[in-house]
Amino acid sequence: MTKIQTVRGMRDFLPSDAEKLRYVEAVAKKVAGLHGFEEIITPLVEHYDLLAAKSGEEIKARMYSFEDLGGRKLALRPEFTASIARLMASTLRNEPKPLRLFSTGTLYRYDEPQFGRYREFWQSNFEIIGSSRPEADVEVLSLTNHLLQKLGLSNFWFKIGHVGILRGLLSEEGVRDEHQNSVMQLLDAKRWNEALRTAEEFGVSRKGLSALKEVFEAKGKDASKVLTEVKKKLEEYESPVTAVDNLQQIIELCKESGVKFNMSIETGFARGLEYYTGMIFEPLVPEMEISLGGGGRYDKLVELFGGEPTPAVGVAHGLDRIALAIDKQNVTLKISKKIVAVIPIGEEAVSKAFAIALQLRKRGLAVELEVMGRTVSRALQDADRRKMAYAVILGPKELEKGKVMLRDMKKRQQRPINIDDISEEVSKKMS
Amino acid sequence: MTKIQTVRGMRDFLPSDAEKLRYVEAVAKKVAGLHGFEEIITPLVEHYDLLAAKSGEEIKARMYSFEDLGGRKLALRPEFTASIARLMASTLRNEPKPLRLFSTGTLYRYDEPQFGRYREFWQSNFEIIGSSRPEADVEVLSLTNHLLQKLGLSNFWFKIGHVGILRGLLSEEGVRDEHQNSVMQLLDAKRWNEALRTAEEFGVSRKGLSALKEVFEAKGKDASKVLTEVKKKLEEYESPVTAVDNLQQIIELCKESGVKFNMSIETGFARGLEYYTGMIFEPLVPEMEISLGGGGRYDKLVELFGGEPTPAVGVAHGLDRIALAIDKQNVTLKISKKIVAVIPIGEEAVSKAFAIALQLRKRGLAVELEVMGRTVSRALQDADRRKMAYAVILGPKELEKGKVMLRDMKKRQQRPINIDDISEEVSKKMS
Repeated sequence: MTKIQTVRGMRDFLPSDAEKLRYVEAVAKKVAGLHGFEEIITPLVEHYDLLAAKSGEEIKARMYSFEDLGGRKLALRPEFTASIARLMASTLRNEPKPLRLFSTGTLYRYDEPQFGRYREFWQSNFEIIGSSRPEADVEVLSLTNHLLQKLGLSNFWFKIGHVGILRGLLSEEGVRDEHQNSVMQLLDAKRWNEALRTAEEFGVSRKGLSALKEVFEAKGKDASKVLTEVKKKLEEYESPVTAVDNLQQIIELCKESGVKFNMSIETGFARGLEYYTGMIFEPLVPEMEISLGGGGRYDKLVELFGGEPTPAVGVAHGLDRIALAIDKQNVTLKISKKIVAVIPIGEEAVSKAFAIALQLRKRGLAVELEVMGRTVSRALQDADRRKMAYAVILGPKELEKGKVMLRDMKKRQQRPINIDDISEEVSKKMS
Repeated sequence: MTKIQTVRGMRDFLPSDAEKLRYVEAVAKKVAGLHGFEEIITPLVEHYDLLAAKSGEEIKARMYSFEDLGGRKLALRPEFTASIARLMASTLRNEPKPLRLFSTGTLYRYDEPQFGRYREFWQSNFEIIGSSRPEADVEVLSLTNHLLQKLGLSNFWFKIGHVGILRGLLSEEGVRDEHQNSVMQLLDAKRWNEALRTAEEFGVSRKGLSALKEVFEAKGKDASKVLTEVKKKLEEYESPVTAVDNLQQIIELCKESGVKFNMSIETGFARGLEYYTGMIFEPLVPEMEISLGGGGRYDKLVELFGGEPTPAVGVAHGLDRIALAIDKQNVTLKISKKIVAVIPIGEEAVSKAFAIALQLRKRGLAVELEVMGRTVSRALQDADRRKMAYAVILGPKELEKGKVMLRDMKKRQQRPINIDDISEEVSKKMS
């Protein structure tokens, strides 16, 4: 017998869950429009090399990769940004900057399934390409804030860091990029001690190690306090101080602009993807361990694919995770729909029922036409169970007089009306 | 260097194409709602065995299949219906019928790329599950008609056939199901003579071959004429005659109900998928060789996966092909958007610009905030090129007086207005 389950780590969305997910996606699209982002659709299947180039060891090891019938080595995208960087290095190479690009769809990682983490997951992805200024970083934070607020989440915060602090420190201590990646990877996995030991192995000085430890540990809600203190400890390093200044500037601009959100500044915070170069962040809710998304600045990625040096900053929102957070915070979504059942009695009334259904749909009304040939009482029972608003019943007696029955399903009342008035009547009632 | 092209047969949709595709998809969703369909989202990745079970040799050979890291044999879905049948045999097994299920998304087949045919393609998929009556067949034809009309296509027709005619004839001639599949496959590839020869090899009698030939050739716009003639030739076979009657009933009901479309009845018409059992159809336009979709009745598929015997009829619309047809028929879509540029002059005005952008967005207005730190004249040039509607310019002189400049980009006129009035003013102008 054929397997009838979904593949492990993947899932079906039945109508009520699908509706919720699509609602979250629609709000993300709305927010994209409000912020001047245009949608780009890239393939789900890309060359393995493209996706593996700068995604980080962790993600690379968990990609769904395979050969196609032509022997090409391909993979399912584990994230959107590599595809966007590909476009920036090719088709969109000469487009005037800035570009504000939006994408939405599914992504794939062979992670161990857990609450809120699936092997097929949904994201909306925003990228501002061409600006190295803090305004662009703030736009990305601000639109994420806008999205979560608009969806009605009442309790969330941003964890914020800056990759330039740690990378700068390691660079000035003479640690090569690839070795830096190993340290960052350990940090992402919150294995602080191993990260320190690894840094030591790569030749970081005693002074450097002590500074690293300070950076790992600095954390707090008061950004200015945390960053001022860290800065003191990093005095002797140039680029980490520049990074701290940059982060301070971004956070100041948020405050001055009225972009309000709770935050936790964590200078030891790292993200799985290797391509970040500046500010990074994740939105979080108290009810869930995993983040609702993540983003940051990546100024070198487009270059890596042969494009012009192009500063960029972006964010991906986990749409299915946000849908879970909405449940956890008991948010009621504004989804409503009203449906009319159209029920013919007897074979003679069937074509008439179709004609009425056509008419109602042309007026924009949702119609479920009886297609089972059931008796009117069974069809009405079903309409009741499905919470339909009205039923139009075509009985032979009424039809003879050019009429049909219009039944209010909630009130359980019905009255005959002229066939010619049916669209007008029903649309008045449904509006 | 990393490969920067898309994978052969796959493509990017840049904003104007993405907008068109999403528009077609949105209309399909609208039509789904109008017909009482609920959305189901199934994974893109399914067990290979599920997808291969009844898709037909042709499609099976062209699936993207692979093993995941756990050694499971998986594939990218080449169509939606197998996943829906899986659901009907498991999670939705006991749901009261009928079910009207809608899905939309990408599908994958390793076909030779040609005009309108890609290896990643887009469909909206509709299924009515639980009804064996012609009303359900008509609903599926009618909603497809509704969709194409609503999108503004002026010239399309349906090619319509019925799998039961040929299959019934072959059955009564003693040809086994799997051998029937071989004959149907040849028909789908329009290799009529080979199909006849193969039927002969499988033991079809001389009388049977002559009837087959009649069925292959019967074709025309006048359904009643074509079907009456074919029926005469099939007199001695029982189930093919029942199939012809069923098809006649469906087409009659369309006519009586006012579901109007051009059609070509072709009794020798077969589709690639093996699971069809009844009426089948494809919408076509004169400008394209490939169909805009396809559908039909499949009454045995759910059973195949261990579900209850469940009659069903469905259709898949090729959304990207429909977008091409819209281009070919020069249909103008109703997509419009107006954007306001918000441009600060000098660093001091940046946070003020953010605050105004936030305000405007809260009123539902689309804002592109200047994030490049450009001079006002360069920013305005860009806004002009991007056809923005208005610009709000924050200059130091006006700000001192609590004002900003509001510029009408089309008229090239600007005047100072109070900061407090800006949302009100701009939303009035944009509405």
